[in-house]
Amino acid sequence: MLSEFSLIERFFARRAATRAHAARHPVPDAASALLGIGDDCALLSPRPGEMLAVSTDMLVEGRHFFPDVDPHALGHKTLAVNLSDLAAMGAAPQAFTLAFALPRADEAWLAAFSAGLFELAERFGCELVGGDTTAGPLNLCVTVFGSVPADVALRRDAAQAGDDIWVSGTLGDARAGLGAIRGEWSVDHANPAFADADHAQFRRALERPEPRILLGLALRGVARAALDLSDGLAGDLRHILERSNMAAIVDADAVPRSDALRRLTPEIQRRCTLSGGDDYELCFTASPAMRDAVENAGRAAGVAVTRIGTICAPYSAPHAAAPHAIVWHDADGAPLTLTLQGFDHFHAD
Amino acid sequence: MLSEFSLIERFFARRAATRAHAARHPVPDAASALLGIGDDCALLSPRPGEMLAVSTDMLVEGRHFFPDVDPHALGHKTLAVNLSDLAAMGAAPQAFTLAFALPRADEAWLAAFSAGLFELAERFGCELVGGDTTAGPLNLCVTVFGSVPADVALRRDAAQAGDDIWVSGTLGDARAGLGAIRGEWSVDHANPAFADADHAQFRRALERPEPRILLGLALRGVARAALDLSDGLAGDLRHILERSNMAAIVDADAVPRSDALRRLTPEIQRRCTLSGGDDYELCFTASPAMRDAVENAGRAAGVAVTRIGTICAPYSAPHAAAPHAIVWHDADGAPLTLTLQGFDHFHAD
Repeated sequence: MLSEFSLIERFFARRAATRAHAARHPVPDAASALLGIGDDCALLSPRPGEMLAVSTDMLVEGRHFFPDVDPHALGHKTLAVNLSDLAAMGAAPQAFTLAFALPRADEAWLAAFSAGLFELAERFGCELVGGDTTAGPLNLCVTVFGSVPADVALRRDAAQAGDDIWVSGTLGDARAGLGAIRGEWSVDHANPAFADADHAQFRRALERPEPRILLGLALRGVARAALDLSDGLAGDLRHILERSNMAAIVDADAVPRSDALRRLTPEIQRRCTLSGGDDYELCFTASPAMRDAVENAGRAAGVAVTRIGTICAPYSAPHAAAPHAIVWHDADGAPLTLTLQGFDHFHAD
Repeated sequence: MLSEFSLIERFFARRAATRAHAARHPVPDAASALLGIGDDCALLSPRPGEMLAVSTDMLVEGRHFFPDVDPHALGHKTLAVNLSDLAAMGAAPQAFTLAFALPRADEAWLAAFSAGLFELAERFGCELVGGDTTAGPLNLCVTVFGSVPADVALRRDAAQAGDDIWVSGTLGDARAGLGAIRGEWSVDHANPAFADADHAQFRRALERPEPRILLGLALRGVARAALDLSDGLAGDLRHILERSNMAAIVDADAVPRSDALRRLTPEIQRRCTLSGGDDYELCFTASPAMRDAVENAGRAAGVAVTRIGTICAPYSAPHAAAPHAIVWHDADGAPLTLTLQGFDHFHAD
């Protein structure tokens, strides 16, 4: 059994100190912390003239990951979901803290977890600057820090009527993977050649989301409102609509999905793309005058961007119960009356 | 049962938005966050020319507090232990994030917890700017942000040979309260008039530690090294010694203690003051030329400061096994050979 301090030293502090400072991605060079692990506080500053973007996420066993999850993948995902919040703000990653409760100090588990965590951290030049460890039911809490000029930060309250609504990548694979693991549906296709590959792709989407940092940076000055999709498109888009006081019309069939997902039934596709969670793609709005600029940003970041709808003025009572509603239609323009909910952590789901 | 979003809105977001901006304590006016709760990230900056001091602490039921703890006291302590890290850095509080896992959304519990949390936050002008909530075993993770000029930050690596070693307030009451609750000792004195009052004082020390923010600010430019005492003087002082490459001589009988603690046996007093935890007082070093300035800082902050020992050069091998040892003696100068350990979260204690 390792003591707390030797455990931190062995798997985290030393790696943080000796990490490669050269990020493999061309993220703007982040200012290193003046003071990192080992003091009462880390000392950080944003780049000159910029603001520090801060986000925190807590991951709990059985809620956000399965007890038997690959610890390397869990290390990746623990940081990825936080970096995704920076991406949604257009912020360049700088640093993070990690607080965790562990039932026991399992060296093999910690070695794999920290490897997955630091591989992603080093890819984006994001430095571990502090943390806390304690005994307790498995719980992982990361707070992440990035730098962004205040005037180009991608806020949720900036959507305007007439804006296009875009999403990056494809949606629904992570939810498809979760459903397959839970036994909600089978990925055993008529053509078995696809089954294993599709399974693996869904599982990878669930366990190793890619934070869209480069896209967020490329969208500075191009997009208006943005957020990252963690709880499902239908629920998350509502946050933009409510904070911007807008409504939306969305083509459910335009929501991009993988070839693997297309091999599942249309009903499952819709469920996974519209109300699935854990996508960690960006959903953002931009003026129609910016269509070329958005496409260029996607190309620069190496990720597809797809237009799925339009922002419109809020519906006025009494004609509509919900001023910030999303009106869904299919590819033929026929309205969809599905009940679509993002998931909500205190509901039994 | 409240949904996650209405729960956050009801107990946290609204209170954060309408909080009194006028702090009751004369903390230097902290820059408010440009963007707080409700977006992917909060946007913060330190005061012009200063650094952002960042610390994170995780509190777990059964480890850091009893399951039946008063939720108002728990709200206080959850933030207090984090503010204490800012105090130890000489930083002025600005903002914090709160991530928590709860087994269920208990409204009465949340109302009391958030009241205790915000009463302390408002006292120091510290704004809630973001967070995360999830279902899971009770776990509270705060990340706190303060502002400090880099050149006067109170680091752990700045102690010099010949420095006085000081502590604020009194040590050991929290540990005395823990021991009484655990049945390790009794506070039933020969004079029963003291028993209830002493019990209450110990329990208050355990549940409602006072972060020494004002003292930390007053020690800028006065103290050299500092930290806050969370795991016990003997263990925590070692962090200063190791990072500063120094050793220390400490008068165990000079360590300040309350009158209530003096009514327990000398052995219990020593155990509580030297290896107890949860004091959240500051331990710091300063040049002997600064004695008046340190006393003045204590008076300005309204807390006693007591000299307990001296920093000295590290012991050299092979004469001493531990170059950064603390040599303890009693009031008569007789050496103490007790084994004194700060507690360590992965040991069974």
